[in-house]
Amino acid sequence: MTTTATDALRAPGPAADVLVRLEDVCNGHAVDDLALRLAELRTWINADLTDVEADLRAIEVADTPMHRSAHHLLGLDGKRLRPLCVALAARAGSGFGPAARNLAVAAELVHSATLLHDDVVDLGDRRRGEPAARVIYGNAASIFAGDWLLVEALKRTRAAGLPDVLDRALEVLREMIGAEAIQLAARGTLRTSTAEYFRVVEGKTASLFRWAMYAGGRAGGLAPAACDALESYGRCLGVAFQVVDDVLDVAGDAAVVGKNLFADLREGKLTYPLLLAAERDGGLREALVGVCSAPPAASLDPALVRRVSAAVRETGALDDARALAGALSQDAVRALAPLPQGRAREALESVAVAMLHRRK
Amino acid sequence: MTTTATDALRAPGPAADVLVRLEDVCNGHAVDDLALRLAELRTWINADLTDVEADLRAIEVADTPMHRSAHHLLGLDGKRLRPLCVALAARAGSGFGPAARNLAVAAELVHSATLLHDDVVDLGDRRRGEPAARVIYGNAASIFAGDWLLVEALKRTRAAGLPDVLDRALEVLREMIGAEAIQLAARGTLRTSTAEYFRVVEGKTASLFRWAMYAGGRAGGLAPAACDALESYGRCLGVAFQVVDDVLDVAGDAAVVGKNLFADLREGKLTYPLLLAAERDGGLREALVGVCSAPPAASLDPALVRRVSAAVRETGALDDARALAGALSQDAVRALAPLPQGRAREALESVAVAMLHRRK
Repeated sequence: MTTTATDALRAPGPAADVLVRLEDVCNGHAVDDLALRLAELRTWINADLTDVEADLRAIEVADTPMHRSAHHLLGLDGKRLRPLCVALAARAGSGFGPAARNLAVAAELVHSATLLHDDVVDLGDRRRGEPAARVIYGNAASIFAGDWLLVEALKRTRAAGLPDVLDRALEVLREMIGAEAIQLAARGTLRTSTAEYFRVVEGKTASLFRWAMYAGGRAGGLAPAACDALESYGRCLGVAFQVVDDVLDVAGDAAVVGKNLFADLREGKLTYPLLLAAERDGGLREALVGVCSAPPAASLDPALVRRVSAAVRETGALDDARALAGALSQDAVRALAPLPQGRAREALESVAVAMLHRRK
Repeated sequence: MTTTATDALRAPGPAADVLVRLEDVCNGHAVDDLALRLAELRTWINADLTDVEADLRAIEVADTPMHRSAHHLLGLDGKRLRPLCVALAARAGSGFGPAARNLAVAAELVHSATLLHDDVVDLGDRRRGEPAARVIYGNAASIFAGDWLLVEALKRTRAAGLPDVLDRALEVLREMIGAEAIQLAARGTLRTSTAEYFRVVEGKTASLFRWAMYAGGRAGGLAPAACDALESYGRCLGVAFQVVDDVLDVAGDAAVVGKNLFADLREGKLTYPLLLAAERDGGLREALVGVCSAPPAASLDPALVRRVSAAVRETGALDDARALAGALSQDAVRALAPLPQGRAREALESVAVAMLHRRK
């Protein structure tokens, strides 16, 4: 298929930008079939994501720094992957009804709340290619805005009327915050092992994808076995997402990613390729100790950046990280086995594969 | 009654320190009957508050700055007024059972979460006479600790198994955060009116007292009319509590209060006596503009402190603030009319009166 054919399938509106982006990546990458499937998927669920977007923009608008701070973030061009997960999971069942819509909004609100607090904690200046909310409205506004969006997320989860989904939301929040605590405790040290890395990723990233898939399945009225399958898919997808994020931080295109490369390292956090490389290259490990124990820096020494970039390639760390993401994507697809064949299952398979090819 | 007789009634343990303190204040203040009633009340509910204290101390202990930050605050000598409200409300019904215990813990956890975030936002260095958690473990740990305690509070609220109490908890949290947003927006200006002051106090302080009373009543199996009465009591008590807090900030004994006087003014916040005085004394209003528009200061100009201290007395603002607290305390007692006479109702009446006499 041609780019033009893909373009023709594009519905208007920003809601499904993630799929446009994934299509762009797939075109010209010998994955034309995948690009076609994503374009179809996009048309199919565009209305769902447009509904979610409308709800996100309509959340209480008021003239305080807190409200403006939250709406600044919600108005930025996010990937909306978590609402996408809820929508597809719901469509594997009876469809995207009011409960699924509430849960899709909740998933994005939880994610937004963590971004607001993370940017304060990490002194992050850029988010989604724009100044972070805290830079414009201050740290205090971002702290309260995160609290607020968390509460709004739980109100919507409660409104969905599925008690087990609410219980799991609270448990997932506990896991997410616990992972932040571990990451914070490890900051400034090189104690982090790959085992600890995965513990943090399971909590910080995969848990919310897991919940989004489970919540969507429940809202779609699916049987427990199918909901469990969706949850497993979400877990694999979430870890794969983070590993790809880490690869992009080391070897992405800064202009496309929307932030500087090595942003994590500047904040004293080791990404998966760096952890692997440091395990294999004692000299690199030494060099990283200094960076990690220093306070977050505005920029890194260019010589160090070259050293790290070379090491992640030469030690095979980058290739191994990509291979792991690939294996996780396959695991995600395999986890869907208990689901009936159909459009939703195919869409989820496409998303798991496209995840590997994303550039931002 | 003598101090010795009061002492003899004291049960061991830190749980009901608030009542010990209120007794101390009442003794020698010609309110001997009130002191006796508080002492009896203390013996009556000591076991309830000891249970709450045990739950608070037992919340996940782990070796991260976030966990240590939360436990630092929970381990400080707090007044535990919100759990006291839940316990007394529950005892107005069938008693302090497992649901009431969960809700009492939840009320203190919500309060603790707000203190952790407030201290980061206000750059607060002292809390309950000790260094604030953020001073010891850092702002990042306090931000995550606040998030964590909020989630734990909601888990316990959910565990109580009363859906309307959970819905109200989420709504109260929204109100509390909304009030923080208004307060933050007003900071650095003298726009604040007494009307806006009460809007903020209703949200920031009274809403949680209101919820604590309602939640306790529901856990005690009380009828809707009784729960509504308890909620009205909580609202009046909460506003009275804040007005007394404001009076103590202006005219308390710094050593007893556990923090410097005029702490609110240093943070650019106008307390009720100051707002009243500024309305009545144009010169004072001018003087306060400069303080409010400056960044939070380590200390205030002693000449300004003398000026403000004199003005709140000479304009009658301090007396009027005390009179308002008294009227609110009476309103609280009157709100209890629909409740049957009995030990719990008498105890709530004693608490409303003792609130006026507290010194910290």
